[in-house]
Amino acid sequence: MVNAKIISIGDEILIGQIINTNASFICNKLYSIGILAEKISTIGDSEEPLLAELDESVKNFDVTIITGGLGPTHDDLTKPVLIKFFKDVLITDEKVLEHIKLFFAKRNIKMPETNYEQALVPKNSRIIWNANGTAPGIWIEHNNKVFIALPGVPHETIAMVDNLVLDMLKEKFSVTMDYKLKSKTILTTGIGESVLAEIIGDVNLVIGDSKLAFLPSPYGVRLRIDVSGTDENECAQKILNIENKLKEKIGKYIYGENSDLLEKIVGEILLKKGFSVSTAESCTGGLISKRLTDISGSSNYFKGGVCTYSNESKLKLLGLNHELLIKFGAVSEDTAREMAVNVRLKFQTDIGISTTGIAGPSGGTIEKPVGLVWIGYSDKFKSFAKKFHFGDNRDIVRIRASQMSLEILRQELI
Amino acid sequence: MVNAKIISIGDEILIGQIINTNASFICNKLYSIGILAEKISTIGDSEEPLLAELDESVKNFDVTIITGGLGPTHDDLTKPVLIKFFKDVLITDEKVLEHIKLFFAKRNIKMPETNYEQALVPKNSRIIWNANGTAPGIWIEHNNKVFIALPGVPHETIAMVDNLVLDMLKEKFSVTMDYKLKSKTILTTGIGESVLAEIIGDVNLVIGDSKLAFLPSPYGVRLRIDVSGTDENECAQKILNIENKLKEKIGKYIYGENSDLLEKIVGEILLKKGFSVSTAESCTGGLISKRLTDISGSSNYFKGGVCTYSNESKLKLLGLNHELLIKFGAVSEDTAREMAVNVRLKFQTDIGISTTGIAGPSGGTIEKPVGLVWIGYSDKFKSFAKKFHFGDNRDIVRIRASQMSLEILRQELI
Repeated sequence: MVNAKIISIGDEILIGQIINTNASFICNKLYSIGILAEKISTIGDSEEPLLAELDESVKNFDVTIITGGLGPTHDDLTKPVLIKFFKDVLITDEKVLEHIKLFFAKRNIKMPETNYEQALVPKNSRIIWNANGTAPGIWIEHNNKVFIALPGVPHETIAMVDNLVLDMLKEKFSVTMDYKLKSKTILTTGIGESVLAEIIGDVNLVIGDSKLAFLPSPYGVRLRIDVSGTDENECAQKILNIENKLKEKIGKYIYGENSDLLEKIVGEILLKKGFSVSTAESCTGGLISKRLTDISGSSNYFKGGVCTYSNESKLKLLGLNHELLIKFGAVSEDTAREMAVNVRLKFQTDIGISTTGIAGPSGGTIEKPVGLVWIGYSDKFKSFAKKFHFGDNRDIVRIRASQMSLEILRQELI
Repeated sequence: MVNAKIISIGDEILIGQIINTNASFICNKLYSIGILAEKISTIGDSEEPLLAELDESVKNFDVTIITGGLGPTHDDLTKPVLIKFFKDVLITDEKVLEHIKLFFAKRNIKMPETNYEQALVPKNSRIIWNANGTAPGIWIEHNNKVFIALPGVPHETIAMVDNLVLDMLKEKFSVTMDYKLKSKTILTTGIGESVLAEIIGDVNLVIGDSKLAFLPSPYGVRLRIDVSGTDENECAQKILNIENKLKEKIGKYIYGENSDLLEKIVGEILLKKGFSVSTAESCTGGLISKRLTDISGSSNYFKGGVCTYSNESKLKLLGLNHELLIKFGAVSEDTAREMAVNVRLKFQTDIGISTTGIAGPSGGTIEKPVGLVWIGYSDKFKSFAKKFHFGDNRDIVRIRASQMSLEILRQELI
């Protein structure tokens, strides 16, 4: 199997000024053609660490992709280090020079002297054309291993990888590209990582020689299945088998796959069933209606909502029962349920959902601690409220409350 | 100078499923206390590469911070590898175990067996308390070098670094920042990158030998000033000079600096002035109330809002004038202004703000294209609505509309 390493060069990454999105993009693209990145090394703009990385690459990696350090300034060291490492020399590529001159002419800018250096490339290399910038990419082969240098500017890198590098790699390694990788992510919510693991039980019985990764987030735990095989069919079949076993065990917690959004899935069901919904939000402050309306076309099923962030507004906007509110408090089963009922009637929708809770960091008591959230649901036939504890981080309490509200809606719809 | 390496663990990074934001965050924080990360190594969930990285760290780095691989599932290998490498054993930390038990008890969930393992820590280590999760951080010292293992879940990592790790490192290495580089970001909104550049004029007259980067986003253009100097004072003085020059030219567009949030700044002004606000949202669908309530303590000035996503709800919930709505349409100056007035009266707040527009991708006409948004404002003394065109990307239209609404609120408050 072809393996790869990414070397990201740039002091700005190491002081945390920018996030390394190039590496993530390249890894994803490599994976799509069956090449697995086994390492990303991010290093600064200096010679020694790059030499050390190249040394390691020669030993352990079929493909090494370097990004950054190809610019026209003094701190751009990729080319000098490459020729030093491979004992090569730099020569001017006339076509690249012409391209750079044209680049400046088009913009009516006098070409700075330093840009002549960008037309220099190692003698024993192929050019990877950079249509969007002045730094050409470089392809070097050494002992049947490939070394690729690309500029660090994301839109240049992305275009070069998409339009050229992937095809060049496919061609180069076609003989050994009989090994396929495939992955699928199953999305669950409403259940913690360890409880999920307990229900799934012995993972090996479920996945065999494949891999299963648990990826927790405030939206729920994602389960990524990674399989490998000799062809597409074998991979697809393996994934299907694992997926079916998982569905048997934890099906009720699964709401989607890969990049699915719960708000989109709920919207599709609402649309299909012809139901409308409205929201009454307290602790989530509009997050549920924001998420529902993130989806284009949501006006077909979402009629609107109220955000009642004070007791007065709960009374006035939703017409809650004053005595109930006083007796049980704003964060209570009765208030949550009545909010859902009343918002449904107010907006004349089929379904009403509501949240009331203590997002924190302040406002908690022993009886009603930070993280306590009541979620209400109401339709023509039934109305109820459920109690949750979502931890003590304000942002996460709100995200989890919105996610669980949408999940309750989904559960009731199916 | 104290140097550091970050080891990020996770197959999900290497297949490009997630972007490694933890590393960037940690590098930035280390830099702020004068520790320079010289390398970030991202590796998969398996034993060998982590052992190799630890080996390199022992030789070359004063501080090594590992993120990920501390969860309760089978693919979490950091602890087993650490004790193997340092020839240590795992023992149960009773305080951590108690914390984990409480974590589940609070949520009314039976604690799974696997979570007992999370209370296991290397015998020769210190605990880094994880208030937000069940996996404790680990601090190991070896030959005067420090090895830190943190969970991979970003909000847990962030809190642990901010609240504990930085202080522990400062104490250990008594680091003093060698202020060779300093940067500050000025936040603007309501003005495009090129217009901003035009107003600023010749950048060199403003910045001298320093750097100014334009970083556009849907929230506005951020201007990052990078200066260098021999000591802290020189850097601070340079930044101040540039900042003053910028403020002279573009002061009215500047709402904050660095990681400031407009919703937080608006909240602080509202609190100080003792004013309350309510929102009536159509195209933003709750995003403004969501952002206002992201801020803890917002219940002191935000009383609530309505999301009127249908004409019926605009009429019924906000009591809009039926004839006006028919005559001018939902997306109009009159509707926006009346929404702001009526929501202010409904919630009995000092200020009401509103949005009505066409977020797209559908629903646009020649007269009222996608991206058209009216933003309304109302207080005791005046009420108005302003017209904007926010492009044709649904998400960006909504973000820009919410940002401009908050900016109008800020402008009126100051």
